[in-house]
Amino acid sequence: MARRRSTDTKPASIKDVAALAGVSVPTVSRYLNDRGVSDEKRTRIARAIDMLGYRPNPIAQALVNERTSMIAVMCADITLFGQAQTYKGIEQRAHGGGYSPDVFVLGGRDVAHEVRSCLDRNPAGLILMNFDPECADVLDLVPHDLPTAVIAGNRDERFAQISLAEDDGGYRITRHLLELGHRSVQYIGIPGGVGSYSRMAGWQRACREAGIVAPDPIACTWRPQDARAIGRRLADDPAVTAVFAGNDETAMGVIRGLRDGGRRVPDDVSVVGFDDHPLASIWDPAITTIRQDFHRAGAAAFDAVTGIIADLGEGRVDSRTQLVEVPGELVIRQSSGPAAR
Amino acid sequence: MARRRSTDTKPASIKDVAALAGVSVPTVSRYLNDRGVSDEKRTRIARAIDMLGYRPNPIAQALVNERTSMIAVMCADITLFGQAQTYKGIEQRAHGGGYSPDVFVLGGRDVAHEVRSCLDRNPAGLILMNFDPECADVLDLVPHDLPTAVIAGNRDERFAQISLAEDDGGYRITRHLLELGHRSVQYIGIPGGVGSYSRMAGWQRACREAGIVAPDPIACTWRPQDARAIGRRLADDPAVTAVFAGNDETAMGVIRGLRDGGRRVPDDVSVVGFDDHPLASIWDPAITTIRQDFHRAGAAAFDAVTGIIADLGEGRVDSRTQLVEVPGELVIRQSSGPAAR
Repeated sequence: MARRRSTDTKPASIKDVAALAGVSVPTVSRYLNDRGVSDEKRTRIARAIDMLGYRPNPIAQALVNERTSMIAVMCADITLFGQAQTYKGIEQRAHGGGYSPDVFVLGGRDVAHEVRSCLDRNPAGLILMNFDPECADVLDLVPHDLPTAVIAGNRDERFAQISLAEDDGGYRITRHLLELGHRSVQYIGIPGGVGSYSRMAGWQRACREAGIVAPDPIACTWRPQDARAIGRRLADDPAVTAVFAGNDETAMGVIRGLRDGGRRVPDDVSVVGFDDHPLASIWDPAITTIRQDFHRAGAAAFDAVTGIIADLGEGRVDSRTQLVEVPGELVIRQSSGPAAR
Repeated sequence: MARRRSTDTKPASIKDVAALAGVSVPTVSRYLNDRGVSDEKRTRIARAIDMLGYRPNPIAQALVNERTSMIAVMCADITLFGQAQTYKGIEQRAHGGGYSPDVFVLGGRDVAHEVRSCLDRNPAGLILMNFDPECADVLDLVPHDLPTAVIAGNRDERFAQISLAEDDGGYRITRHLLELGHRSVQYIGIPGGVGSYSRMAGWQRACREAGIVAPDPIACTWRPQDARAIGRRLADDPAVTAVFAGNDETAMGVIRGLRDGGRRVPDDVSVVGFDDHPLASIWDPAITTIRQDFHRAGAAAFDAVTGIIADLGEGRVDSRTQLVEVPGELVIRQSSGPAAR
């Protein structure tokens, strides 16, 4: 009994079953759904199903559709400004198209377990926001053939990647401070912001180029209160005249702490941030920063993944490891000024 | 030919098919996956499948599992502080349990279309963050039997609801200002914050009780810059000595605008906010606010939905329309002070 399915490229449809059994499509459907069909027709349908190798595909199809429409978006913490904005960029780009993003928050959990839960859902592609250390581990856990785009982090040649050119941003904002006459720039790091493509690496490069020994970076948490405590400590050190905070919220905390300690910003100490948080421009003083285009990075990642999916459909593979740059923009406001004489 | 499935409660399993056909389970599996099985065995398996009314359930099962493990979380904008925090509360509560939350962002789109897309995914339950006007429309679009919990918004007796008791919070923070001697309190509203359970309703009630005619509320967007422009305008009105801003970010903008216009906070004008944003305590001056426990609200909503699912499984329905209160807490800081003489 030759099964058509093994020779034809197209699997047998419910229509084929109905035609071979000499019954209507609704009758086959009733049979498949265990509803009343005469014994005689049931025998004919069962035989047709067997001969054609037919499988009740509405269910399988639903799963297949599921598989091809979901783009998994992984990040460490969706409540952080940059990650929320990036997700919004992905969401807006996806809107109305054939793919819908689904967010998976790692949040300091067992990464391997979270990745498995995600893959169990059969995503058509993956966007990884590689802003936090645990996220980098994800890349060793995803199958090689899953269309993937990585946002930020160090360059990983195995994947398509959207770079925010943070090292360049860190370099430019440090240069800005040095050009104002500051002889040293203190860096306050946010969690995970290390590696050669980080804002910290740009700071180090600018210091090196200027022949300055970069002071040890100070590590901070995501909590603005902790940044405030650091600002209070820095207020006691008269050598500190310029601070580059790893993000704007950290800058806000540092400014408050410096003020607690009796230092004026920018008159005594310049403080700059990174990201251009919506509150950075209304802070007092308004914060000099690098405006990062998280929206555009999210949209670019979505385009990259759906591009890879389309390319694979046409047998091309060129897009899999592309690099797209979405560089930030230096925005000079009131929190940075000339070094005090 | 009597089909076992129509009389038994339990559908036939692959084991039943293997036993009846006199083959091993892996052989049935190979048959179902179109891999090499001898013609003779195939005929026996096909007959057993037909007699038992067996349906290749691994696929169906996957769909069924999908249906019962996903809790849809709908909100208007996941990048806003309250919504992001609420999602985090849901996420953390769900972690490690049998249900996983999936966020659906309405974002000013065709709500009916978004709800359909969500329902197509067969969620086991729904959590709706009812902070924005478009969200209320969702409730008329979800099936009556879908386990649902609503966070915030006006009381809807059809559903389980987590109230943040915003009206109570609005009342208390307005009372705080009136007790400081202010004769009037200006309210600046955030988008959608209307209705009898809103912070604005609490402000109106406190004014009414104090025998004060509440001034017309001023509508603001989510953009802190717009709040700053409102602050600048208010700076020109010497009658304004106390402002209740609809959330902390709005309060920050208003404070900055008042300062632009030469007014000191709180010496000339007291400004209070709502939510207890992480930056509220490090703002200068630190902002008096109502601390909302979004995390707890999210966790309570998750508990409510999974409770309804469990209750339905046991034939109970009591939990479907429960009301849980997660009231806020008045946090007095430096942005509010006695009315100037």
